[in-house]
Amino acid sequence: PEIFDNEEYQEHDYAGVVTGLAWTQFGGEILFIESSLSKGKGKLTLSGKLGDVMKESAMAALSYIRANAEEIGIDYRLFDKYDLHVHVPAGAVPKDGPSAGITMLTSMASAFTQRKVRDKLAMTGEITLRGKVLPVGGIKEKLLAAKRAGITDLIFCYKNRKDIEEINQRYLKGLNIHYVDRADEVLQIALMPQKVKGARQFELEDVKKD
Amino acid sequence: PEIFDNEEYQEHDYAGVVTGLAWTQFGGEILFIESSLSKGKGKLTLSGKLGDVMKESAMAALSYIRANAEEIGIDYRLFDKYDLHVHVPAGAVPKDGPSAGITMLTSMASAFTQRKVRDKLAMTGEITLRGKVLPVGGIKEKLLAAKRAGITDLIFCYKNRKDIEEINQRYLKGLNIHYVDRADEVLQIALMPQKVKGARQFELEDVKKD
Amino acid sequence: PEIFDNEEYQEHDYAGVVTGLAWTQFGGEILFIESSLSKGKGKLTLSGKLGDVMKESAMAALSYIRANAEEIGIDYRLFDKYDLHVHVPAGAVPKDGPSAGITMLTSMASAFTQRKVRDKLAMTGEITLRGKVLPVGGIKEKLLAAKRAGITDLIFCYKNRKDIEEINQRYLKGLNIHYVDRADEVLQIALMPQKVKGARQFELEDVKKD
Amino acid sequence: PEIFDNEEYQEHDYAGVVTGLAWTQFGGEILFIESSLSKGKGKLTLSGKLGDVMKESAMAALSYIRANAEEIGIDYRLFDKYDLHVHVPAGAVPKDGPSAGITMLTSMASAFTQRKVRDKLAMTGEITLRGKVLPVGGIKEKLLAAKRAGITDLIFCYKNRKDIEEINQRYLKGLNIHYVDRADEVLQIALMPQKVKGARQFELEDVKKD
Amino acid sequence: PEIFDNEEYQEHDYAGVVTGLAWTQFGGEILFIESSLSKGKGKLTLSGKLGDVMKESAMAALSYIRANAEEIGIDYRLFDKYDLHVHVPAGAVPKDGPSAGITMLTSMASAFTQRKVRDKLAMTGEITLRGKVLPVGGIKEKLLAAKRAGITDLIFCYKNRKDIEEINQRYLKGLNIHYVDRADEVLQIALMPQKVKGARQFELEDVKKD
Amino acid sequence: PEIFDNEEYQEHDYAGVVTGLAWTQFGGEILFIESSLSKGKGKLTLSGKLGDVMKESAMAALSYIRANAEEIGIDYRLFDKYDLHVHVPAGAVPKDGPSAGITMLTSMASAFTQRKVRDKLAMTGEITLRGKVLPVGGIKEKLLAAKRAGITDLIFCYKNRKDIEEINQRYLKGLNIHYVDRADEVLQIALMPQKVKGARQFELEDVKKD
Ligand SMILES: [Ca+2]
Ligand SMILES: [Ca+2]
Ligand SMILES: [Ca+2]
Ligand SMILES: [Ca+2]
Ligand SMILES: [Ca+2]
Ligand SMILES: [Ca+2]
Ligand SMILES: [Ca+2]
Ligand SMILES: [Ca+2]
Ligand SMILES: [Ca+2]
Ligand SMILES: [Ca+2]
Ligand SMILES: [Ca+2]
Ligand SMILES: [Ca+2]
Repeated sequence: PEIFDNEEYQEHDYAGVVTGLAWTQFGGEILFIESSLSKGKGKLTLSGKLGDVMKESAMAALSYIRANAEEIGIDYRLFDKYDLHVHVPAGAVPKDGPSAGITMLTSMASAFTQRKVRDKLAMTGEITLRGKVLPVGGIKEKLLAAKRAGITDLIFCYKNRKDIEEINQRYLKGLNIHYVDRADEVLQIALMPQKVKGARQFELEDVKKD
Repeated sequence: PEIFDNEEYQEHDYAGVVTGLAWTQFGGEILFIESSLSKGKGKLTLSGKLGDVMKESAMAALSYIRANAEEIGIDYRLFDKYDLHVHVPAGAVPKDGPSAGITMLTSMASAFTQRKVRDKLAMTGEITLRGKVLPVGGIKEKLLAAKRAGITDLIFCYKNRKDIEEINQRYLKGLNIHYVDRADEVLQIALMPQKVKGARQFELEDVKKD
Repeated sequence: PEIFDNEEYQEHDYAGVVTGLAWTQFGGEILFIESSLSKGKGKLTLSGKLGDVMKESAMAALSYIRANAEEIGIDYRLFDKYDLHVHVPAGAVPKDGPSAGITMLTSMASAFTQRKVRDKLAMTGEITLRGKVLPVGGIKEKLLAAKRAGITDLIFCYKNRKDIEEINQRYLKGLNIHYVDRADEVLQIALMPQKVKGARQFELEDVKKD
Repeated sequence: PEIFDNEEYQEHDYAGVVTGLAWTQFGGEILFIESSLSKGKGKLTLSGKLGDVMKESAMAALSYIRANAEEIGIDYRLFDKYDLHVHVPAGAVPKDGPSAGITMLTSMASAFTQRKVRDKLAMTGEITLRGKVLPVGGIKEKLLAAKRAGITDLIFCYKNRKDIEEINQRYLKGLNIHYVDRADEVLQIALMPQKVKGARQFELEDVKKD
Repeated sequence: PEIFDNEEYQEHDYAGVVTGLAWTQFGGEILFIESSLSKGKGKLTLSGKLGDVMKESAMAALSYIRANAEEIGIDYRLFDKYDLHVHVPAGAVPKDGPSAGITMLTSMASAFTQRKVRDKLAMTGEITLRGKVLPVGGIKEKLLAAKRAGITDLIFCYKNRKDIEEINQRYLKGLNIHYVDRADEVLQIALMPQKVKGARQFELEDVKKD
Repeated sequence: PEIFDNEEYQEHDYAGVVTGLAWTQFGGEILFIESSLSKGKGKLTLSGKLGDVMKESAMAALSYIRANAEEIGIDYRLFDKYDLHVHVPAGAVPKDGPSAGITMLTSMASAFTQRKVRDKLAMTGEITLRGKVLPVGGIKEKLLAAKRAGITDLIFCYKNRKDIEEINQRYLKGLNIHYVDRADEVLQIALMPQKVKGARQFELEDVKKD
């Protein structure tokens, strides 16, 4: 049974698209978190059949970004002048849990900064409001799914290190595993210094001309 | 049992009306997505007994259009000064699922641009926020329903090609099948360069005179 | 069992009151759709124990009127400066289904234009956003109820013609049946050129003097 | 079992307080509808454990009053500058149904005009948006409850006349029964020309001084 | 089983804190209603696991206060410039019913006027929108609970007098019982002429300086 | 079964992060309440799978802070110009009850003042709107969990003193227990005079420059 469409690895050509890892009863799966901005009034829209915990996870990620906008390099006026939509395909598959927290964080931060996401990178981990990264479950299955999909770099919480160490070494070959404790470490690893090709120019002044 | 009123093919004389394809337990059906704009404040109304997944699908399509307004040729002020209503007759038939994503996209884009939709065209496919088109189910039944209704051009996701190739060749005769990967390809195929006859002139400045 | 209060035919002295036809398990019934405007901010209120499909039907009718205001002869500022209330007595009887679509359309259009509704007229038919009229069920029972109530003119969808042709000719005597395909045909038949006696004068400028 | 506190008749010293009649499984009861205005922004609050039909009934009564403000003698600016609260004690007793429609109408109209309600008057009847009064059930029990409470004047719908005529004549002695067809007749009977003692002076201009 | 924390009597040092009486299946209990104002826009917040009837009771009390602000001595601008929060500890105990009506009224009125609440006073009674006080149940148990807690003054509805008269005289010793019919009598008994120590100074003009 | 991730004691380097104590069916647990401010319009967001009682608890804490802003040293304009988000990890664990009241109070007050929270401190206790602290359950299990986590200072309600006195003395060794009656005592114990390192500078004037 194929729950998510098991797409091969994709280059991160779009700002706001980040690869996450899900655990299902049939094994691990990769999924994509997509964030998109459009001129608006600061509304947040969440879609993709997300459960309440996953929605709260997105809200925590956004609050972290808003509270740390300056450090991340985001002009805070963006939050008022653009609407943010976060979508997780496939649209008909129910999704829940807090483990997409750091993926949502990275997706939103990339959309707001238009910085390119590191190629062949995937991640999983809960995020708290103050930016702490918490461990999550299903690590082995997630890692295997990432490998099958061509991922080479993975971000996990330090507290998940013990789960990785229980995995047979040969599965880890060819994988760079980054352990993190805090949200700023995630962004430092995941976001490239350069912007995506054709990065959007946000209009911050006088959006409403009439 | 006739769930949808199985109307013969109709010319696309109206901007905002696009033919989609549905799968029901009694076979494939064609359906129509209607988008309409009226002076307002940017409100989105969805009707036609749509389930949550289908509503989120419409929201993703709209966010894609808003984020790519310039490329599609839409003055972004339209989003603030007009309300958008998307309706899917028949009103008493429950509908759900993500497969109307690209049909909704095309319907909205046609309403905003007033460009004519290609005649005798139908389509099915999920859309994601970044404009990726995902494969959907029920391809054979949908194709047959389209053919019965007089459709000659069909848009599917590339990943549904394998489903088409399993269909007996004689059913495909007289059908032009367009495979797409991205939303901009859908719009390029579906929207004619010219506007519909009697295209509406949107008022973008000073809508409220008092 | 008398579900609706089976009132005899009433002259259409009030703008915004239109006779519809309902199907119940005890036979056909006539019902009245009432639309009323009061100074406000463009709010829509629906009452009369209406189900979701009937509410969406009202929303589609209103969107059609808003998108075609100029053709119908309505100053679009009315939509911003007045609230619209649509009520369907009797208040304790649950009602649902899309078949009151064209009745709601006519009721709203009469309220906005203050044009008189044709005497002894009743109608039934679903309306879509683009103004297409769709066939509905229970035609025979509805026709008989209309006749009992003294109705002489009836509007149906063209696609319901086959249902009428199955009715014994003697029941059709004395009835003018109008078949329509589109909303503008409905309004042309149902609304008289003249306004009702004591038609309201809407205030369009400077409603809020303070 | 005493569901409502069976208060003896009360003089209508307060604007906005009107006696209605309810039917319960233990017989008829009188109840009071209270309407109160306070400076605000036009919000409507309904309380007293009211069911949806009774709430819609209140909304229809208010829309009728708003649409006919001039005829009733209400400055329409009141609707924007004051909040209206309608409460039906006792607060813990669930109430529903459309039969309090004309009582709510009278209560609201008295609150807005500050006109005194006729002494020893009670009423029951559904109201529609256009001001039509519809018949209701439980007439005999309601009449007896009113008599027990000292009521001398009663308002019913003309179509309830047949229910009254089935009641033994001796119960009707000492009662003036007013039959009505329309909302304006109700108000003409129920509201005295003079205002209540200590009638409120509404502030219509410049409510917000800062 | 101790449902409420059975606190001994407390002096009313805070404006907005009033002692009420509840009936539970284990006997009577005292409870505290707390009202607090903070700069805002006129929002009402209710908390303490309150049921719908108790919430509506609070709304009726507030509407009475708003409609009679001048008589009570409240500058009506307070309602727009401050938010009101009414809380009933303990937060985990579900509470419902209309009998806290006059306690809520007194709590709110004390918060708005900053007048001190009479020491060693408790009360129970439903309030209606026009300020009528209605009788409630559980009088004997409530009186005993008040006495245990050191209460010396009690306010009841006149119609509850018969319930008091059925109580053995020796329980009533040392208790002053005040019977009331109307909300203004409640406030006259419950609120002292003087303000609490350290009464708040409300800012009524120009709250928003920017 | 490990419900909360049993983290060792953490220094309170962040403003707005406070250690609370929870009771679960498997024993006591420490948890963290996180409060974060971002430029906004005064919206309150609560997350972490919180039940209604816990949400109301947060609302009561916030109202207390707003009503006593001056005493606590908070410029009231912060409440209008910043949004407050309170989150309680782990995001997937359901939490309810009023016992986190004083922890939420301290977390919010630290976020608004940017004052450092005392190191190695934990607390539990319900808070009411007027700032009264109420006793809570599970004291022994909570104390043991705190000790295991390296906590040295604990805040409880005075009325929980009897629960502490029933605990074997040797468990209390090395613990400073602070008993409180009121919210201001909590803040005096919990908040250090100095601000956290890198304390945020809030912008109070002219947040919206356009
Ligand atoms: Ca897969
Ligand atoms: Ca998870
Ligand atoms: Ca069909
Ligand atoms: Ca589908
Ligand atoms: Ca009938
Ligand atoms: Ca129908
Ligand atoms: Ca009674
Ligand atoms: Ca009734
Ligand atoms: Ca107790
Ligand atoms: Ca009660
Ligand atoms: Ca643990
Ligand atoms: Ca608790």
